[in-house]
Amino acid sequence: MFVEQLQALCRQPSVSAQNLGLYETAELVGKFLKETGFIVEMFSPSKGPPIVFAELPSRIGTRTLVFYNHYDVQPVEPLELWKNPPFSATVDDGKVYARGASDNKGNIISRLMSISAFLKATGTVPCNLKWVIEGEEEIGSPHFSEFITRYKERLTGDSAIWEFGGLDYEDRPLVTLGLKGMLYVEFRVQTALKDSHSARAAVVENPAWRLVRMLDTITDEDGRIMVEGWYDDVRPFTQEELEAIRAMPLEEHSIRDELGVKNFLFGLTGFEFKKAFYGNPTANIAGIWSGYTGPGHKTVLPSVAQAKMDFRLVPNQDPVKLAGKLRQHLVRHEFADVEVNLQAENPAARTPIDARIAKIAARAGREVFRKEPVTLVTSAASGPMHYFTNTLGLPTVAIGCNHAKSNTHAPNENQRIDVFVKGSKWIARVIEEFAKPPT
Amino acid sequence: MFVEQLQALCRQPSVSAQNLGLYETAELVGKFLKETGFIVEMFSPSKGPPIVFAELPSRIGTRTLVFYNHYDVQPVEPLELWKNPPFSATVDDGKVYARGASDNKGNIISRLMSISAFLKATGTVPCNLKWVIEGEEEIGSPHFSEFITRYKERLTGDSAIWEFGGLDYEDRPLVTLGLKGMLYVEFRVQTALKDSHSARAAVVENPAWRLVRMLDTITDEDGRIMVEGWYDDVRPFTQEELEAIRAMPLEEHSIRDELGVKNFLFGLTGFEFKKAFYGNPTANIAGIWSGYTGPGHKTVLPSVAQAKMDFRLVPNQDPVKLAGKLRQHLVRHEFADVEVNLQAENPAARTPIDARIAKIAARAGREVFRKEPVTLVTSAASGPMHYFTNTLGLPTVAIGCNHAKSNTHAPNENQRIDVFVKGSKWIARVIEEFAKPPT
Repeated sequence: MFVEQLQALCRQPSVSAQNLGLYETAELVGKFLKETGFIVEMFSPSKGPPIVFAELPSRIGTRTLVFYNHYDVQPVEPLELWKNPPFSATVDDGKVYARGASDNKGNIISRLMSISAFLKATGTVPCNLKWVIEGEEEIGSPHFSEFITRYKERLTGDSAIWEFGGLDYEDRPLVTLGLKGMLYVEFRVQTALKDSHSARAAVVENPAWRLVRMLDTITDEDGRIMVEGWYDDVRPFTQEELEAIRAMPLEEHSIRDELGVKNFLFGLTGFEFKKAFYGNPTANIAGIWSGYTGPGHKTVLPSVAQAKMDFRLVPNQDPVKLAGKLRQHLVRHEFADVEVNLQAENPAARTPIDARIAKIAARAGREVFRKEPVTLVTSAASGPMHYFTNTLGLPTVAIGCNHAKSNTHAPNENQRIDVFVKGSKWIARVIEEFAKPPT
Repeated sequence: MFVEQLQALCRQPSVSAQNLGLYETAELVGKFLKETGFIVEMFSPSKGPPIVFAELPSRIGTRTLVFYNHYDVQPVEPLELWKNPPFSATVDDGKVYARGASDNKGNIISRLMSISAFLKATGTVPCNLKWVIEGEEEIGSPHFSEFITRYKERLTGDSAIWEFGGLDYEDRPLVTLGLKGMLYVEFRVQTALKDSHSARAAVVENPAWRLVRMLDTITDEDGRIMVEGWYDDVRPFTQEELEAIRAMPLEEHSIRDELGVKNFLFGLTGFEFKKAFYGNPTANIAGIWSGYTGPGHKTVLPSVAQAKMDFRLVPNQDPVKLAGKLRQHLVRHEFADVEVNLQAENPAARTPIDARIAKIAARAGREVFRKEPVTLVTSAASGPMHYFTNTLGLPTVAIGCNHAKSNTHAPNENQRIDVFVKGSKWIARVIEEFAKPPT
């Protein structure tokens, strides 16, 4: 029955990047929650699709657990690489194949299954549940802060469970305690009203040179960020976090093979590699373009040059403050003519290793999957987790029903049905333990 | 009749960038030349369309004049901006509208008209004529050196007339004596087999950073080329050339208005502006691209970054030698991993101001157009003129029947019929004067 519900949810397209089916999906998710017993509200931000907010008070417990999920999915392209149509939700070989099956509809239904089991068995849930399901996670949650501001008083609780999580390549349960933050910036330099014959390059300024020179001031040749004060507030790993990092499985080899790289930056390897991967702020050119980029040779003096950069942030770095430092840096280096367009900003989120919810999640994972769990101090990726950890002050763990070969964001995304069911048990055990009074 | 011949030639598409109609156009051009009285040969390079080579010996003169033209045209896109279909050759308001009407089919037929007139009036031409018409000028003449190597012994002569030329914005006849050279280079940096999640930027090298850093070593912030020895062989303007430049009309104001720029590089203005425009070697980023360049924000660690650069060269700079210096520069600055792909190379061409053909062209222009001619020591643009000036040793002038608003390379390209006819008379007067023994 829950597999069928997952199929029904997967068959409803919900591509936020293409504004496809979002309202319908919000309605469907709301319907499923209502049918289970939740009190459901739809929050309509000033722009963008509804955010589903649902509550289920416990008749026996006083503690409160908050869930975060998202109902939107990544675009399905390239279509030709899918074995089955991406919204067909075909079941094959013990897996449901669909865009969103893993990220994040599988987790929504898997959690619903846990809650349903409690209600069936006991008529209630052991603790109060609050559930937030947004529809713009895949495009950077642009209207989520509006929701948080509006619902802050109602989102009080004791801990939170994040949208994703599951098993690694060796089927070990993963407990992730944090995400890096993000400052996403687009730079634009325009030096003329239109492109020109490049014979004029002797006298007319080329914006691509200007952009190149500006970018070259942002990092040094070792990749260190040269913006004044960028590292000022960085909180180093605690001794406990360093120990956990030492115990984290090494991704070095798999990245090296997958990308065909011989050496990593700075010649990093082993523990130092892991420490940098999880702990270093980054400055990444995600895109750069100017002039003629087609085949063959064409001589043109471009009028506009642009670049996109994502800066990953670590705990205590404030993206708003850093955006200011970046602007100051440009002025100081005489690039005040370069336009800076902030596209997204999120601080990092990190829950302490000794948080009760972290320990419960690890213990329950060991019990359900019969494998030693891996605690990830942080993911190297980013997301809006800080609203929960920082703004709402909720210790937060990411656990769920994903598996390592689920092809998240790629063709043939899938949900392993066995992990879907076990992930549900994992969440149930966490709810159960969490509902008990802390010792 | 010659307007009809121009229409017929314009109605035959010949877009070299799209390999469209080139063989048919070569045949048609050859047919027109044969019908006029030329002995025509087709040279088939190892790749690419035929080069038409035609000869018309004089029965009365011993001197030899060589013409260079091209029968290929630029692509017609964007189609929607044309008032009439680009290959319709519609006559309207005293102009023939067509892609190629001005560049370069108008000049071919206008010259044919001159020669025809001599033959009709006297049964011969006053000097020997040789005519080269290639079909790849618009894509950088990739197979022209093959032709020159093969035909060098047969291309002997006393002077040459280049493909283009005509009237400026004030209908003054222009006599152009040179072109800048060109080194066109594509750079490519690859740091991984495929694009990656940008969370990995903490440990995996980003090729866009590498490219940016490499490019930033090529010029300094004033735009001066920092490749060691780049300016070593630059031949400065002669006193005579400087005087001619002083007399050249100032393009400063029109470029400023067209491009909406407030100041030129280095704050150049007046004589210094002109000297830089015509005399400075350039290093232009014609294109740069890496990663995600679409709308919105996407976080990706690119695996490849590329750039295209055109370097304009001035007399005595050797593009092959400079390409070597560029490679050395990359090694010296530890960018040996950056791939360098040479796409085209041409040295500069410049005919001395006191060349007899230059004086004849100016005098004849004054006579035909009744305006003081303007001698351009060089154009700031490039082309394969050096094969004529340097390899064949022919003093060369660019004169013709173009006008300032002919929309060359743009939509609604056109040929003013009055200039077409007068340009024919200009060439005829030059042939006549040139045929006389030098005094």
